Amino acid sequence: MESNRLLEMLRGHQGEYISGEELSRRLSISRTAVWKQINKLRQEGYEFEAVSRKGYRLVHTPERIQSAEVLSQLRTKAFGQPLYVLEVVKTTQEELRKLAEQGASEGTLVIAEEQTLGRGRHGRKWYSPAGQGIWMSLLLRPGQPIVFAAQLTLLTAVAVCRAMRKVSGADVGIKWPNDLLVQGKKLCGILVESISEDELLKYCIVGIGIDVNLQQEDIPEELRSVATSLRIESGARQDRAKLIAEIMHELEQLYDLYKQEGFAPISHLWEALSVTIGQRVKIRTPEGELGGLATGLDSTGALLMTDDHGKARTIFSGEIQLGR
Amino acid sequence: MESNRLLEMLRGHQGEYISGEELSRRLSISRTAVWKQINKLRQEGYEFEAVSRKGYRLVHTPERIQSAEVLSQLRTKAFGQPLYVLEVVKTTQEELRKLAEQGASEGTLVIAEEQTLGRGRHGRKWYSPAGQGIWMSLLLRPGQPIVFAAQLTLLTAVAVCRAMRKVSGADVGIKWPNDLLVQGKKLCGILVESISEDELLKYCIVGIGIDVNLQQEDIPEELRSVATSLRIESGARQDRAKLIAEIMHELEQLYDLYKQEGFAPISHLWEALSVTIGQRVKIRTPEGELGGLATGLDSTGALLMTDDHGKARTIFSGEIQLGR
Repeated sequence: MESNRLLEMLRGHQGEYISGEELSRRLSISRTAVWKQINKLRQEGYEFEAVSRKGYRLVHTPERIQSAEVLSQLRTKAFGQPLYVLEVVKTTQEELRKLAEQGASEGTLVIAEEQTLGRGRHGRKWYSPAGQGIWMSLLLRPGQPIVFAAQLTLLTAVAVCRAMRKVSGADVGIKWPNDLLVQGKKLCGILVESISEDELLKYCIVGIGIDVNLQQEDIPEELRSVATSLRIESGARQDRAKLIAEIMHELEQLYDLYKQEGFAPISHLWEALSVTIGQRVKIRTPEGELGGLATGLDSTGALLMTDDHGKARTIFSGEIQLGR
Repeated sequence: MESNRLLEMLRGHQGEYISGEELSRRLSISRTAVWKQINKLRQEGYEFEAVSRKGYRLVHTPERIQSAEVLSQLRTKAFGQPLYVLEVVKTTQEELRKLAEQGASEGTLVIAEEQTLGRGRHGRKWYSPAGQGIWMSLLLRPGQPIVFAAQLTLLTAVAVCRAMRKVSGADVGIKWPNDLLVQGKKLCGILVESISEDELLKYCIVGIGIDVNLQQEDIPEELRSVATSLRIESGARQDRAKLIAEIMHELEQLYDLYKQEGFAPISHLWEALSVTIGQRVKIRTPEGELGGLATGLDSTGALLMTDDHGKARTIFSGEIQLGR
């Protein structure tokens, strides 16, 4: 409620500064409380300029992702349709899984403005604040042998990486298997959940989380050394609807290519965008830590490396730390 | 209701014959209706002797699977516990999946007396009548890379095959990947559903359906050339609780072995019990039909064959017809 009245006042000033003291007096709350409300609004995507002695000025009201805007920019046959744009959800994965169980078609896309229980790889929490990022899940029904599941994860990383580079110009690269980075800092995570029956994939829920328009101060302090956003790296606010449409386009193109030509062309594209291949890496696997040189992908999508004793290794699962 | 009164009368005769005519008269229904009721009871596991001029005699009342009986015979650390013995369900897979989502532990077992929507491989209906078979689902949480999912399917086939041979003495063999046969006729199907996150298996719902005590006349006529039961093949009624306990024992032993030693020992056991390896096979794959000689398993659990043109093939998914 206080934040609503605060917004009203700042809007009433038409982009002029209004001092913290005046806000405090008019709202009958302390200066600290004003500052807390401002921060809360920042997390919802509002942007303020704060200048000492002058006060606060509203410079940006958060946009919402509009279905119509996404749909009008889609250049796909099926990916991104039907489209569900939701407000606050626990996770888009969960929402899409319900739809999948009810028979939703391949290409169905669920987007949320905010996730309250966003998760990353290995069950880690994924910070998904309102209005600043893209939190979405796409349904695939590949009917492939389960042995190839990792390939779909790599394919997704390639598609999202290409779309982000194209739309923003930022120098985005892929860390094996599917983290997207700029200069060693993460700005996109991909999480693929697969449901299989015997040796065939029944469906895949492809979760994509992108820090699009977060600013330095929106990123929790303890994450600033490892996390960034497309806005920080490109120097410009990005149009989320446009980026979503571009990702759907890239994904559908690569998926069609994969179904026709198999994994080889995807593997080449992945290696070209990779920041892992040709690097010394340290990798945490279920069996312990391993150091060595990452050399390429095998035909299933596993990582090939030569360990510190010169032995060839195939890594199916693990987490990489670069350049150590 | 009529079948209840019919049973009462037959029970009242203490194993002596009672004529169809008398049953018809006492129940005030036609002879055909008597015969229909007898058949209905047979499907529920009751057994009758029918001798012309003498009439019907009740020779067996169906047993139910008792939790206590299974639990008292378990020799496992975790497999088979907790145990849920249910009456009629759509599928045990669905029941166990609900439990898995709520955090059920590895080894949790769901058994049902009857499934109304029992399914086999490739979405086919699986006939699961009351009281005659074992329809059950076991929860595994292997945490293995998804690329190895097929191995768990093969492991299950080995364990169930060994348990069936041990308990009944029947000459049960494995058709790739996981059908169990005696002399070319199927008596057990296995269906493994896996839920994965990125490259790791989160959990597997291992479905096992065994035709245990069905008699020739219990098997739908259109299936008699391809389906059989353990009772038909061993010549004796089998104790279902004992067989369940033995399967849990074999599964846990092999699963522990697999976790310690990997797939190689499981692969050897599978090949030894296989009716596929060393045979000419015709196989229907997603890419079309293929003929050739099945030669073995690869390290992921895929089938290796030499096709009719002498070319080596790796089959990840498909359905085999033997000896064509």
